[in-house]
Amino acid sequence: MFYLHDLYCPECGAVFATGALHTFCTACRSPLLARYDLARARAELDRAAFSARPRGMWRWHELLPVRDPACRLALGEGDCPLLTAPRLSTALGLPHLFIKDESFNPTGSFKARGMAAAVSAALELGVRELVVPTAGNAGGALAAYAARAGLPAHVFMPADAPAANVVEARLYGADVQLVAGLISDAGRLAAAAAAEHGWFDVSTFKEPYRVEGKKIMGYELAEEFGWSLPDVIIYPTGGGTGLVGMWKAFAELAELGWLVDDRRPRMVSVQAAGCAPIVRAFDLGAERAEFFAGAATLAAGLRVPGPFADRLILRSLRESGGTAVAVGDDEILAAQRELAQAEGIFAAPEGAATLAGLRRLAAEGWVRPGERVVLFNTGAGLKYLDGVSA
Amino acid sequence: MFYLHDLYCPECGAVFATGALHTFCTACRSPLLARYDLARARAELDRAAFSARPRGMWRWHELLPVRDPACRLALGEGDCPLLTAPRLSTALGLPHLFIKDESFNPTGSFKARGMAAAVSAALELGVRELVVPTAGNAGGALAAYAARAGLPAHVFMPADAPAANVVEARLYGADVQLVAGLISDAGRLAAAAAAEHGWFDVSTFKEPYRVEGKKIMGYELAEEFGWSLPDVIIYPTGGGTGLVGMWKAFAELAELGWLVDDRRPRMVSVQAAGCAPIVRAFDLGAERAEFFAGAATLAAGLRVPGPFADRLILRSLRESGGTAVAVGDDEILAAQRELAQAEGIFAAPEGAATLAGLRRLAAEGWVRPGERVVLFNTGAGLKYLDGVSA
Repeated sequence: MFYLHDLYCPECGAVFATGALHTFCTACRSPLLARYDLARARAELDRAAFSARPRGMWRWHELLPVRDPACRLALGEGDCPLLTAPRLSTALGLPHLFIKDESFNPTGSFKARGMAAAVSAALELGVRELVVPTAGNAGGALAAYAARAGLPAHVFMPADAPAANVVEARLYGADVQLVAGLISDAGRLAAAAAAEHGWFDVSTFKEPYRVEGKKIMGYELAEEFGWSLPDVIIYPTGGGTGLVGMWKAFAELAELGWLVDDRRPRMVSVQAAGCAPIVRAFDLGAERAEFFAGAATLAAGLRVPGPFADRLILRSLRESGGTAVAVGDDEILAAQRELAQAEGIFAAPEGAATLAGLRRLAAEGWVRPGERVVLFNTGAGLKYLDGVSA
Repeated sequence: MFYLHDLYCPECGAVFATGALHTFCTACRSPLLARYDLARARAELDRAAFSARPRGMWRWHELLPVRDPACRLALGEGDCPLLTAPRLSTALGLPHLFIKDESFNPTGSFKARGMAAAVSAALELGVRELVVPTAGNAGGALAAYAARAGLPAHVFMPADAPAANVVEARLYGADVQLVAGLISDAGRLAAAAAAEHGWFDVSTFKEPYRVEGKKIMGYELAEEFGWSLPDVIIYPTGGGTGLVGMWKAFAELAELGWLVDDRRPRMVSVQAAGCAPIVRAFDLGAERAEFFAGAATLAAGLRVPGPFADRLILRSLRESGGTAVAVGDDEILAAQRELAQAEGIFAAPEGAATLAGLRRLAAEGWVRPGERVVLFNTGAGLKYLDGVSA
């Protein structure tokens, strides 16, 4: 039961065959997206069967790109809890507020979902050695799954990334190179090293499968909300894989005929005011995001000045009737404290940023009281002890 | 559907009514244990119904001590993954080796299970303010659940506890007092403060419900192994709540008629050589463990020189045909590195200690190749960055 059909470039429509290693569309400098035979899947698959399987991302394997069960690397990724937030619900006047807590993934962040899919696919396709540039958490996640796969991994990380990311990646046995600069600088060094040594580069959206792992967040939400999607999803956006992945998942779910109605969530990108290329482009009505010079924020995962999938991110926001919001580091820290003290949730700064964004949108009336709103906490606050002012 | 019947002292048999706050049997200085009406539960409950519920510890609420659903504090605790360990399986010649990874709990440790139950029960029973002495992780877990409950919490922690525990507990809003000495010293200060201010002391086994939350690990294992229990469980033992809790769960499961056979696991305590009161008592054939003077180990959760439930722990080990093993800090660090690099699992030192213990038991032939063996990783290695030598 394998439904992956081909890969395609969403810009020029070029098609790429499965069974071989692909990166991105070099002509368009666009990510490739995986396409499944959803008509056949619709005929053959029953959504209830998925709910009855043991927990984890791989229970959706028919909608993932790894054919051989032995290549599906499993460390407990996926099926993170959807928490309520009773005190914040009351304070914000939003009775249907939820927090999808992605810190319950291996390595304490949502990056595990993408890396589980990408490293598993790479293993199946014969990759021998991996490299990634990272703001921090993706490096830890790659290192863990590469260890699980028995493949060497190289991680290029800004020297000011959280200490936890350096320690975990090295403990898993990865080679960690600390880089003066941002993830964009790390990306250039990683690409050069990949070209020189023949390593496979699993940079965000420069291979097609991290987004497939991330999209499963959308499948889980559909299931958790009884196959009727929530009204608003607020997501912290660095590279944008989760946002694009969930928007893709909702289209797949509709094609599968698994949704009970046609409503899709309005997707909201939250970024830090100190690095907000998507917010700026969204506000300008632009199709592409310009490089955000001088990027600076304590939310390491949001220090992504030039996201490679800018077009896909902006399209998801606009198609969904969503928006983009920038919040200050002071708002992020206040939201982190509020989540901890009001709800008992120790969010990563990126996750806390979504609460700061929601506060704005609720005040403006953009989010209305009857709506079902989901905030994404993308990682464990514990991984950022350097930045927490408890 | 509430089955909690009463509480009893396992030493003198004294019975205590539910619906009121209890601590321990002061006559025997013994923990109290919760007793359920399992005959009625057996008649009324179907184990398959539990498997069909949404994930988490509270899906077993009929076998937990909290009557009011509004008092069941939920932060995503329970249903932690049971991971395979293919490379270690091969290396050790144990094809049926599993790791129950409790780092997938809120606050990154198994302490969340116990505190979820204890704080929920305390909330239901009218407690207004909480206190705990802790080696570290229990303090973070109490702080999180107390925040969720809206109750103030006080945490007494050795000054050399991992930094992560101090930061998280304070971020959740708890009052953290750093103590010169060990958890036993913190315990004396906590008890004195509790008496002075009327705070409720949720010290390990000095109230009856933390063990109820922890026992759910045993229910989950039964379900995960198809209601036929594994052969050997290797558990890092500080206060011993999980070990005693699982042994209690297995007896309950038998009374419920949910097990397909009568076999129960041999329970193994692993302790650090620098603090091994249970190992010493087990080897001496003693019923009680003497205070382990000069306790020192990098595994903070194992720095428990005088576990209050020593009798229950030793009884569980002996009734089960189990054993107790002490391992050195060097073995713990080597096992931590091995788990990370061979399997992609970043275990807490206490969790890594179980692999070091298994290595000894496998070498001695105490564990045999056909046996189903479960190691418990009780927490996230990320919480011990001070001690990791990556």
